[in-house]
Amino acid sequence: MNELDVYRKQNFGNSSGFGDRPALLIVDFVNGFADPDQFGGGNIGEAISATAALLASAREAKIPVAFTRVVYADDGSDAGVFCDKAPGLKNLTEQSEASQVVDALAPADGEYVLRKTQPSAFFGTGLAAWLVSRQADTLLVAGCTTSGCVRASVVDSMSYNFRTIVVTDCVGDRALEPHEANLFDMGQKYADLVSSGGVIGYLAGVTAG
Amino acid sequence: MNELDVYRKQNFGNSSGFGDRPALLIVDFVNGFADPDQFGGGNIGEAISATAALLASAREAKIPVAFTRVVYADDGSDAGVFCDKAPGLKNLTEQSEASQVVDALAPADGEYVLRKTQPSAFFGTGLAAWLVSRQADTLLVAGCTTSGCVRASVVDSMSYNFRTIVVTDCVGDRALEPHEANLFDMGQKYADLVSSGGVIGYLAGVTAG
Amino acid sequence: MNELDVYRKQNFGNSSGFGDRPALLIVDFVNGFADPDQFGGGNIGEAISATAALLASAREAKIPVAFTRVVYADDGSDAGVFCDKAPGLKNLTEQSEASQVVDALAPADGEYVLRKTQPSAFFGTGLAAWLVSRQADTLLVAGCTTSGCVRASVVDSMSYNFRTIVVTDCVGDRALEPHEANLFDMGQKYADLVSSGGVIGYLAGVTAG
Amino acid sequence: MNELDVYRKQNFGNSSGFGDRPALLIVDFVNGFADPDQFGGGNIGEAISATAALLASAREAKIPVAFTRVVYADDGSDAGVFCDKAPGLKNLTEQSEASQVVDALAPADGEYVLRKTQPSAFFGTGLAAWLVSRQADTLLVAGCTTSGCVRASVVDSMSYNFRTIVVTDCVGDRALEPHEANLFDMGQKYADLVSSGGVIGYLAGVTAG
Repeated sequence: MNELDVYRKQNFGNSSGFGDRPALLIVDFVNGFADPDQFGGGNIGEAISATAALLASAREAKIPVAFTRVVYADDGSDAGVFCDKAPGLKNLTEQSEASQVVDALAPADGEYVLRKTQPSAFFGTGLAAWLVSRQADTLLVAGCTTSGCVRASVVDSMSYNFRTIVVTDCVGDRALEPHEANLFDMGQKYADLVSSGGVIGYLAGVTAG
Repeated sequence: MNELDVYRKQNFGNSSGFGDRPALLIVDFVNGFADPDQFGGGNIGEAISATAALLASAREAKIPVAFTRVVYADDGSDAGVFCDKAPGLKNLTEQSEASQVVDALAPADGEYVLRKTQPSAFFGTGLAAWLVSRQADTLLVAGCTTSGCVRASVVDSMSYNFRTIVVTDCVGDRALEPHEANLFDMGQKYADLVSSGGVIGYLAGVTAG
Repeated sequence: MNELDVYRKQNFGNSSGFGDRPALLIVDFVNGFADPDQFGGGNIGEAISATAALLASAREAKIPVAFTRVVYADDGSDAGVFCDKAPGLKNLTEQSEASQVVDALAPADGEYVLRKTQPSAFFGTGLAAWLVSRQADTLLVAGCTTSGCVRASVVDSMSYNFRTIVVTDCVGDRALEPHEANLFDMGQKYADLVSSGGVIGYLAGVTAG
Repeated sequence: MNELDVYRKQNFGNSSGFGDRPALLIVDFVNGFADPDQFGGGNIGEAISATAALLASAREAKIPVAFTRVVYADDGSDAGVFCDKAPGLKNLTEQSEASQVVDALAPADGEYVLRKTQPSAFFGTGLAAWLVSRQADTLLVAGCTTSGCVRASVVDSMSYNFRTIVVTDCVGDRALEPHEANLFDMGQKYADLVSSGGVIGYLAGVTAG
């Protein structure tokens, strides 16, 4: 019996679906994660490209849009265990080129740009409160890495009871095996996996509505 | 270049080490997850066996011990998106046989047994505050599933800046591929991977100290 | 210049208003807080009486209803600093008479009853996630004590960006000066103060809608 | 029977004491809260003066020091219900003079300066994780206002099981009645009230140790 059979037999992998009030979260698509010599590589470049179209669609539908950046203090005063595991993270400071959102996805006025120091976009941030203020019931997630900050953010999004959609071609990772393994875990237990085509179709309905 | 090379080149996978004041967290080793016909299977049975020795060692060292159980209200009033994805979770209620900690690891008086409804042992629970009250700086994690509640708990433990140790032979999963993939992710980014033999040796030193 | 003048001059005390999707939170109206020999006294009895009508109105409007109870483990394993300040809290255990919701406000099937060990109904609980799952945008708060668990819950409710309404005659305290002082603080900075008459009128509109 | 008698009879107001590893938190002592024409007034000026000596003592003892600033995005994208109640808060942006820590207490290199948008220094911030990384067991709290962000931070500090000390002459408020009323509430239920003289004496012992 392979792993998918076990999950089926135990009744995982059901759909949690879309709600009526989506928001879009774009995780860590900053220069340092777009650069294979820093934290990038794999299919992250393609995911950024696909996200440009998704973002345009979200703006047209006038849904709330949030971006995350990893930002540590210049003096390292807020570095912790995560930086012990991956010391390069400390280079992502407020002014560093590496911590700026990539040009192709530059935030517009009124969009929410949040700083974080941990994998999840919810941990130690105002994201949950911001989603409540927008009355969102659904979170569309793009970004990187699939096996890191996307996964952690998706688990928290689901834990807060937002219907959570991983936009499959808009998430990327430096290595493809962890990318695939984490898509599997998320699809079975935490979120629905939908391509950007499917999500853009859904957003067209939201606009119309 | 394979995935491990990418992680090495980007300087992931460093050790965050052990601190001086460990606590032990045993995640969801309850009857329902020990039973292949419910949520169990794979190497979960072996992980429970290995955890019995780890727990004995933790008790001898007199370190704080916490257990998690998944517990939903009898009337389903607290069921959310997680139960949409995996409806069987709703059967785990306060009195159900499936939600009791397995006999082999029965909690002792004074050990902390926490109820949770989400993957992470930290989400919506008193775990962080309990660890602060015990002045823990290190969290040793056993339990199941590696790709589910263990992973989510480890990410939060690290995010709270506890040095986090995944006890490799004391975590288990219903399917081995996700088990391995998640050990890889955790070892590269969030925690140190140490066998129960190594952890028991460390605890002997804590006792002596 | 008296204190109210300062707050006016600095532009505090504006209304945050009602939204469209209210939920009702009833904080710690349990036997031990209804009994002047335990944690009760003052105007708590009257607040419980007024809350009975509010609860009936909420049920008629079919809005989500949540209750909190203070519940510590029988063996004291989750007692912390709060119990150092007020040791009597440790008597509030799952089965103790003192920790049961008062008969006049007995929870109905499907209403959410949450256990907590800290002042705020949000701290270490699933309340925020439950409100998200019900798509609430407004939290109506009754309970006790005004200067304790009500205040702490109101601050967190506002911090999560729920429009927060303190139902003035449905909150009570063992002593009237702290009751009044905390109504002042909450009205100036965190919540709107509305009588149960006003809230019941609002709920009639929600029903009609 | 006056209010103090009720609290005594119900066994509130016990001491939670000092631990061995203190940290200092200085809440919102920024220019806008030092200015009576913005958010200041009352005894805030005196509290800032007293805090200068406390801060010197903390630095001599080499304990961890954290400062909070209220900071909203320039475009208001993270403003919520708190700004509905008190619209002037939106003027506190990253670069505004009003949101900078007062010169008398300028943070030194390596001290933690955290941005927040809600009353509590813990809500949506990395403060709990930072305290864990410093293995703090005790939080000394200075700042303003006593009835606002100090109170909210103290409740959360206690909820996380840090032994919490309100440094009585180092907290201030725009109006004295709420200042006094909140000192009463905190002393009875959440924290010990100690003058800066007492805390400086304690820190001398920490240094010596």
